[in-house]
Amino acid sequence: MKIIEKISEMKAWSQGVRGEGFKLSFVPTMGALHEGHIELIKKAQSISDLCVVSIFVNPLQFNSKEDLLRYPRELQKDYKKLRSLKVDVVFVPTVNEMYPPSFQTEVVLPKLSQELCGKFRPGHFQAVATIVLKLFHIVKPNIALFGEKDYQQLLVIRSMVRDLNLDVEVFSMATVRTEEGLALSSRNHLLSSKGLGDAKAIPTALRAAEEIYKKGERNAQEIEKKIKGFIDKDSVKLEYFEIRDVESLEKISAIKDSALCAMAGYVENVRLIDNVVLKQESDE
Amino acid sequence: MKIIEKISEMKAWSQGVRGEGFKLSFVPTMGALHEGHIELIKKAQSISDLCVVSIFVNPLQFNSKEDLLRYPRELQKDYKKLRSLKVDVVFVPTVNEMYPPSFQTEVVLPKLSQELCGKFRPGHFQAVATIVLKLFHIVKPNIALFGEKDYQQLLVIRSMVRDLNLDVEVFSMATVRTEEGLALSSRNHLLSSKGLGDAKAIPTALRAAEEIYKKGERNAQEIEKKIKGFIDKDSVKLEYFEIRDVESLEKISAIKDSALCAMAGYVENVRLIDNVVLKQESDE
Repeated sequence: MKIIEKISEMKAWSQGVRGEGFKLSFVPTMGALHEGHIELIKKAQSISDLCVVSIFVNPLQFNSKEDLLRYPRELQKDYKKLRSLKVDVVFVPTVNEMYPPSFQTEVVLPKLSQELCGKFRPGHFQAVATIVLKLFHIVKPNIALFGEKDYQQLLVIRSMVRDLNLDVEVFSMATVRTEEGLALSSRNHLLSSKGLGDAKAIPTALRAAEEIYKKGERNAQEIEKKIKGFIDKDSVKLEYFEIRDVESLEKISAIKDSALCAMAGYVENVRLIDNVVLKQESDE
Repeated sequence: MKIIEKISEMKAWSQGVRGEGFKLSFVPTMGALHEGHIELIKKAQSISDLCVVSIFVNPLQFNSKEDLLRYPRELQKDYKKLRSLKVDVVFVPTVNEMYPPSFQTEVVLPKLSQELCGKFRPGHFQAVATIVLKLFHIVKPNIALFGEKDYQQLLVIRSMVRDLNLDVEVFSMATVRTEEGLALSSRNHLLSSKGLGDAKAIPTALRAAEEIYKKGERNAQEIEKKIKGFIDKDSVKLEYFEIRDVESLEKISAIKDSALCAMAGYVENVRLIDNVVLKQESDE
């Protein structure tokens, strides 16, 4: 496994293998790899000739210095996991390599970024779009893989790729969960075992919304109201629980074919997100 | 000469020739081609194997509908010029091809864009950066050529290329002028012959600034003050006349090695810009 820190070296490697006709897959991460990442990487390897994983905790996408500082970093453990997966290249640039002092460019998706998490994390999605675009230019993948837990992030990246005419196929995979339903997240590493127990209130709320939907409720506000009343406030400090259009993320009243049900909340001061797409049984 | 209107066709052509190892040059334009464009194209051809010219009047970079509507369009004349130059491909996408209804992504350079013209043309440089990035992704050039008349635009593009890690070499060429010193611009086509005469006050002011500098004046505000008093208000309605840092475009007081002297003004309600870089004789 090649560990590359320099942008120029990463570009040269990618240029070389692309020039030889290899199909290149890419899984961008912020490290602290869990089973969700592992499944993305395995899928990536199964549909490409060579696979690059990046590990870069992007300071610009954090909304507080405290959150950035405590974000889990487990580089040696990550390397070990990636080695055992036989990943071809790990790209681990420094912050200064990615953002030299003169850096100023921002990639903004004003509509998608103002919804849901964007409302509570100003600048977050523009920082995500910008770093992913930089990584795409550096790594030059044919295909890039993202998890559906970060549903809004996925939409932002898909829209950016389409709007900017990039030649990268964006592939997404279902959220990986613990046996008890909790969505895997590097941020779970920050929770105590009590916190991990409390956090289960999040998937429980989403499953309850799905049940109400499956029983025939199509009024989005009705579902939101019922679930908000149902969430245990001692377990999760709810930030939002919303039913939205699956593409635009705009508010909807009546659910037609499908809808996104997304939520964010704090457990032990750690911000967690999760979502489920409500859709007709026949679609599944 | 191939005329391509579809993004998919342009991408396929570029992918093909790049794959065969040809060096590809690109000159993006808004049409109404003049000798400044012609010189860029000739230079492009001399340093590459194949040359693409785009013609696209980008609606997003205009600050008023009126300005967009009256912007000169001379497509058949342009084709004739490009054919006689033996340009390989002209890329002429429609507005809907470039900006489908779902389009929302913006590329923003907040520092560079707020200076000089940016102050008077809100959103202009983000629209320029966005369209140029799209064109780079579609045309995939090794090298792209721009004129130095649009000095701020050139800096915006250079910064974007550097910040986003693009593999495009940005090459610039000196402003082409009439015998009387007027910078060539497609907007000159909108002036009467009286207007063309009045517009000469612009290069005259810049040459005067250069003279003052050459005589030893190094105080930027002194030069600005002198020149502003000197410009014939009946000829040009001055928007700004400023001496700035050549890289950051920030205000400076004492000129060290070099400085940008840039101005914008209206002649017959047509907005014209021009600039000169003040620098020591020994640098030339």
